[in-house]
Amino acid sequence: MAGNSFGQLFRITTFGESHGPAIGVVIDGCPAGLVFDQAFIQLQLSRRRPGQSALTTQRDESDQLELLSGVFEGRTTGTPITLLIRNKDAQSGDYDALKDVYRPSHADYTYEAKYGIRDHRGGGRSSARETAARVAAGGLAQLLLHASGIRVVAYVCGVGSVTYIDEPTQKALLSIENNAVRCPDTTTAARMEAAIAEAKAHGDSLGGMIRVLITGVPAGLGEPVFDKLEADLAKAMLSINAVKGFEVGAGFAAAMAKGSEMNDSFYTDSGRVRTRTNHSGGIQGGISNGETISCRIAFKPVATIQQKQNSIDKAGKSITLEAKGRHDPCVVPRAVPIVEAMAALVLADHLLRQRSAIL
Amino acid sequence: MAGNSFGQLFRITTFGESHGPAIGVVIDGCPAGLVFDQAFIQLQLSRRRPGQSALTTQRDESDQLELLSGVFEGRTTGTPITLLIRNKDAQSGDYDALKDVYRPSHADYTYEAKYGIRDHRGGGRSSARETAARVAAGGLAQLLLHASGIRVVAYVCGVGSVTYIDEPTQKALLSIENNAVRCPDTTTAARMEAAIAEAKAHGDSLGGMIRVLITGVPAGLGEPVFDKLEADLAKAMLSINAVKGFEVGAGFAAAMAKGSEMNDSFYTDSGRVRTRTNHSGGIQGGISNGETISCRIAFKPVATIQQKQNSIDKAGKSITLEAKGRHDPCVVPRAVPIVEAMAALVLADHLLRQRSAIL
Amino acid sequence: MAGNSFGQLFRITTFGESHGPAIGVVIDGCPAGLVFDQAFIQLQLSRRRPGQSALTTQRDESDQLELLSGVFEGRTTGTPITLLIRNKDAQSGDYDALKDVYRPSHADYTYEAKYGIRDHRGGGRSSARETAARVAAGGLAQLLLHASGIRVVAYVCGVGSVTYIDEPTQKALLSIENNAVRCPDTTTAARMEAAIAEAKAHGDSLGGMIRVLITGVPAGLGEPVFDKLEADLAKAMLSINAVKGFEVGAGFAAAMAKGSEMNDSFYTDSGRVRTRTNHSGGIQGGISNGETISCRIAFKPVATIQQKQNSIDKAGKSITLEAKGRHDPCVVPRAVPIVEAMAALVLADHLLRQRSAIL
Amino acid sequence: MAGNSFGQLFRITTFGESHGPAIGVVIDGCPAGLVFDQAFIQLQLSRRRPGQSALTTQRDESDQLELLSGVFEGRTTGTPITLLIRNKDAQSGDYDALKDVYRPSHADYTYEAKYGIRDHRGGGRSSARETAARVAAGGLAQLLLHASGIRVVAYVCGVGSVTYIDEPTQKALLSIENNAVRCPDTTTAARMEAAIAEAKAHGDSLGGMIRVLITGVPAGLGEPVFDKLEADLAKAMLSINAVKGFEVGAGFAAAMAKGSEMNDSFYTDSGRVRTRTNHSGGIQGGISNGETISCRIAFKPVATIQQKQNSIDKAGKSITLEAKGRHDPCVVPRAVPIVEAMAALVLADHLLRQRSAIL
Repeated sequence: MAGNSFGQLFRITTFGESHGPAIGVVIDGCPAGLVFDQAFIQLQLSRRRPGQSALTTQRDESDQLELLSGVFEGRTTGTPITLLIRNKDAQSGDYDALKDVYRPSHADYTYEAKYGIRDHRGGGRSSARETAARVAAGGLAQLLLHASGIRVVAYVCGVGSVTYIDEPTQKALLSIENNAVRCPDTTTAARMEAAIAEAKAHGDSLGGMIRVLITGVPAGLGEPVFDKLEADLAKAMLSINAVKGFEVGAGFAAAMAKGSEMNDSFYTDSGRVRTRTNHSGGIQGGISNGETISCRIAFKPVATIQQKQNSIDKAGKSITLEAKGRHDPCVVPRAVPIVEAMAALVLADHLLRQRSAIL
Repeated sequence: MAGNSFGQLFRITTFGESHGPAIGVVIDGCPAGLVFDQAFIQLQLSRRRPGQSALTTQRDESDQLELLSGVFEGRTTGTPITLLIRNKDAQSGDYDALKDVYRPSHADYTYEAKYGIRDHRGGGRSSARETAARVAAGGLAQLLLHASGIRVVAYVCGVGSVTYIDEPTQKALLSIENNAVRCPDTTTAARMEAAIAEAKAHGDSLGGMIRVLITGVPAGLGEPVFDKLEADLAKAMLSINAVKGFEVGAGFAAAMAKGSEMNDSFYTDSGRVRTRTNHSGGIQGGISNGETISCRIAFKPVATIQQKQNSIDKAGKSITLEAKGRHDPCVVPRAVPIVEAMAALVLADHLLRQRSAIL
Repeated sequence: MAGNSFGQLFRITTFGESHGPAIGVVIDGCPAGLVFDQAFIQLQLSRRRPGQSALTTQRDESDQLELLSGVFEGRTTGTPITLLIRNKDAQSGDYDALKDVYRPSHADYTYEAKYGIRDHRGGGRSSARETAARVAAGGLAQLLLHASGIRVVAYVCGVGSVTYIDEPTQKALLSIENNAVRCPDTTTAARMEAAIAEAKAHGDSLGGMIRVLITGVPAGLGEPVFDKLEADLAKAMLSINAVKGFEVGAGFAAAMAKGSEMNDSFYTDSGRVRTRTNHSGGIQGGISNGETISCRIAFKPVATIQQKQNSIDKAGKSITLEAKGRHDPCVVPRAVPIVEAMAALVLADHLLRQRSAIL
Repeated sequence: MAGNSFGQLFRITTFGESHGPAIGVVIDGCPAGLVFDQAFIQLQLSRRRPGQSALTTQRDESDQLELLSGVFEGRTTGTPITLLIRNKDAQSGDYDALKDVYRPSHADYTYEAKYGIRDHRGGGRSSARETAARVAAGGLAQLLLHASGIRVVAYVCGVGSVTYIDEPTQKALLSIENNAVRCPDTTTAARMEAAIAEAKAHGDSLGGMIRVLITGVPAGLGEPVFDKLEADLAKAMLSINAVKGFEVGAGFAAAMAKGSEMNDSFYTDSGRVRTRTNHSGGIQGGISNGETISCRIAFKPVATIQQKQNSIDKAGKSITLEAKGRHDPCVVPRAVPIVEAMAALVLADHLLRQRSAIL
């Protein structure tokens, strides 16, 4: 109930603080017999890890996975799989001055209000470093999905006012690792990089958007009432640090539209039920319909900026704050594997849940 | 796991189909000793019930609550509270022709794909009628919140292209029942009503938006990682039929902004920690900070329209469809109490969860 | 968390008080497509209902099931199945004098301590009447098990000092409904009936024991650590009113024995793995091994007796109590279908859980 | 759902195999602000660890705790607490010959049936080594209970046919660490040690019994229907390897008794509600009544014996087996801290759950 677990049948529990000895995750409910491709999972982590480019924080963490349980002779055994990542480059001293300070739009004050105590070093548990554990678990979820032909891919579709709204080709999707912002369009990518560089130059930060596409989903995944597939995806995404918005299919644009514009007509394509349009985003009545699932996620700008800001300390006294610590000026490029991980976790869970739907 | 329950400590389970004998809800975990104000709960139901105005479906359901358990001498006893609503005006014959048809953007096909069987009458379990049970439970949740000084109020802020973006006054908020669309601004309300009437005249439907405000929330509610307050709110809202998008605080606009614009500075107001702006929407790091929680929810247009549409039947044969059954041309006015109910359920749950946070 | 639900994938929530309008159960997670044999379920209820014989309470409840949701054209649809049983013969006036009294070994005092309020009429929620809802849900669980060849049968193996320790024949098991105590041995049954009659004549009550056998269970059911099959069975049984003990396989006798006496040797019988003895009771390492699952459950004597007893009232004042209300002098004959129901619920749940164990 | 978690609000998840790199536990939901007394927890582990005396397995594990998360400046922070114990003296080679063998009354066959794959080294996940993680978590639970004045103490009350049935004095209870079997009575302890030594000399093993007493429990803990306090205790105990039976209060003896003998009369003692006898074992209607909670747990003899046994291998071929590996001839002395841990976990969970019972 303390909220550090996610999923019902494919269930993960993450633990660890930014500047503690380690972060990690226990994955309970992964079916036995899955080939544990550690290199694939490590690759996802390396896509998330800091220090990748000039655009990201210079904290240097290799994020090497340590496998503690649940795998025997290369396959999952049905028992809990535990993955550990040691913290190596924690520079806690950077945070000494922040011990009693409430940084604007960080979780300092709210953690204190909730628990009466907080680990202030690097944000403690509220640090986005916790998402490395999600990415590791999400990597395993992706392996499970691949075995069922389901693929999850995300990309950056907005950095500040620079947006990319076209439908990317399959080839463009496969090329997102070729640029530092992970946008399928190289021209837009360059503009995004420039926007981030400019924000950084001003000691500022930028928000952004990520789109995630899930293909190969069989019709029938998702539970119809509270655990609608889009509801679980929304929760998954809003649980990521800095996320402020979520939409599926036509999303907010649908609110402006007419039914005659938004309805997706069914037809039969070589015996398979399809829809001619996909305003629904691959989900109807909370259940996948076999079309591509499509969501967009909005990230606010990183709260840590290199400008003077007014705030208060624990005693309520006004202070002026200047950032210390190492941070990304824009979080979305590194958030791409996080979004993929969360989407994969939701799908893996519902894939297993569907096994009990029919006698 | 079949998704008909919501909440952890304040936990509801809804049941029932649109054209079955009844719908209802079991509420487990409501603390003992709460005065059970049935009139208040009935009032919420009457705000959701069909047949309220010319803008809504003409299905005539009085939605009279029957209390089956959990209350003794006017107070909750700590045992499960069960509320039953009989279906009275189900006209199942209207749906006979739809037995084998997949209506565009309804859940007919996906239910069939999931379960291999479906109750086609009035959409069965996928009908928005299920939300009456949520409104009843949400009414009780509101009573619990009121005892802690927390208030939930929602209003329509968009119907098709007609939007209302101002910050409403307290007085305007209290007057939303005075117009059929539940918009705090009477001029905008009139334009919204006209838009709906026009869509209806064309046999079409319209999407819309609802904003929900939650006031009086103490700092400290919400769990910091997966069960962030905004994550549970997002799930709650996306679990409502026809919802396609959710944002909290600055939402999607934050994705376009800079950190220097979005950060909420702390200050002290008569000893209370406050923020000067509220781009965070009352939640930081997943935990309430004491400011007003503010979310916006996007609803797609109702799928049932009075126009000819192409689709297929169960056998995969192309058909042309003309709507039968009674439906709203725009769902958002009636969805206001549903949004309030879901928000109240999330807050009530986290209010109880917070009781275990500190030694 | 308030404890009115049981099971993970095949999950039930019961509600209702002894003297409220109704009791009932919502069953969530029953797979779609199961033939809903209402007569079978009603039969289980009639085996539990009061007024069956001179040995049981004379409260007269027909316990007619009302089906509110989840079944369409005779089959389950995958949506929640709700079963309602109206209370008809509640004679609440009998309990007026007990409003402020703590009856010995009843739940009067503990409910008051827990909730600060209680529905004193007929024990309120603590009444064994709640188990009728379990029997109804357990009947559905049995239907699911039957579809997999699993059978659950229980019988009385002890009433006071009269015990039956032989291994019953299949024929004897099928004949337990032929006597009022549900013991497979007619001679022992007669002695048990006499013991109950004698206790009743003295205004006293008697404890007893029930054995439950589960056959046709495939090897592999049960989760290996906390949700061992015997752990979930133990919880299921101890959750029944008046149960004070549980044992599986050799049980307490195993504590007195040597490993060389207790180990069950494996052998192969026509290609099927079997054990030559079954001291394990069909479960090893928390997981079924394909042998018959065998458990024994101890029930304390009914707390309500027709003798003068000392107690106190709510104010702490000493009082002398004489029983009112209608009660069984010995609960075990009527508890047989309750034990079967709880066992069936555990097995149905683990049958579904096993579907996710292997890739 | 895969069963590696226990508890609702105070919730633990254990992981790890007997011969993998490590075992461990994540504790989620421990309230913030609790002093983390690592020495106390380490002490509990040392009471469970192998190699304590001539009566126990000679596997040599120091079981040093590594704290990975959730504690800051000596206090819990409300975030997950992760405790790791490295496996150091695993001698996996001992098990090579058992790779394809189903040992009698072990979990070899059932794991294979369930998962189609198993880690055969030292029993893998089915090893009692997993319980070290429970003892660590239970130690923390005890610290939480101590803060509320609740104490848990267990002792051995049976080894084979040697039993100890007296009610121990407080002084005797505090002296159980003075003998190798953890029995409060030194004379009986000597007989128990002799019985174990004799069984060992014959290459055999012995079953036994443990009693657990929980004092200082406020009235009101436990949920009334499925999560009765005794139901959760029963599950907790039956989830321990080798446990075959559980009883609370008068237990199986109650099944033989009359109501007039078993009812516990209430009286008032200096304003506090008490019962004159405690056949209920401190729990009535599933809820604690303030008296000492008393349970007995039956353990079967250890399955590994140093005698020739018949069994089969994976291919179904008959084999003769001689034990390798290091094992206890009687498990109950080392199981005392395990029983205490599980009892503490149940009580800690219900202590937190009770916080939501009343408005």
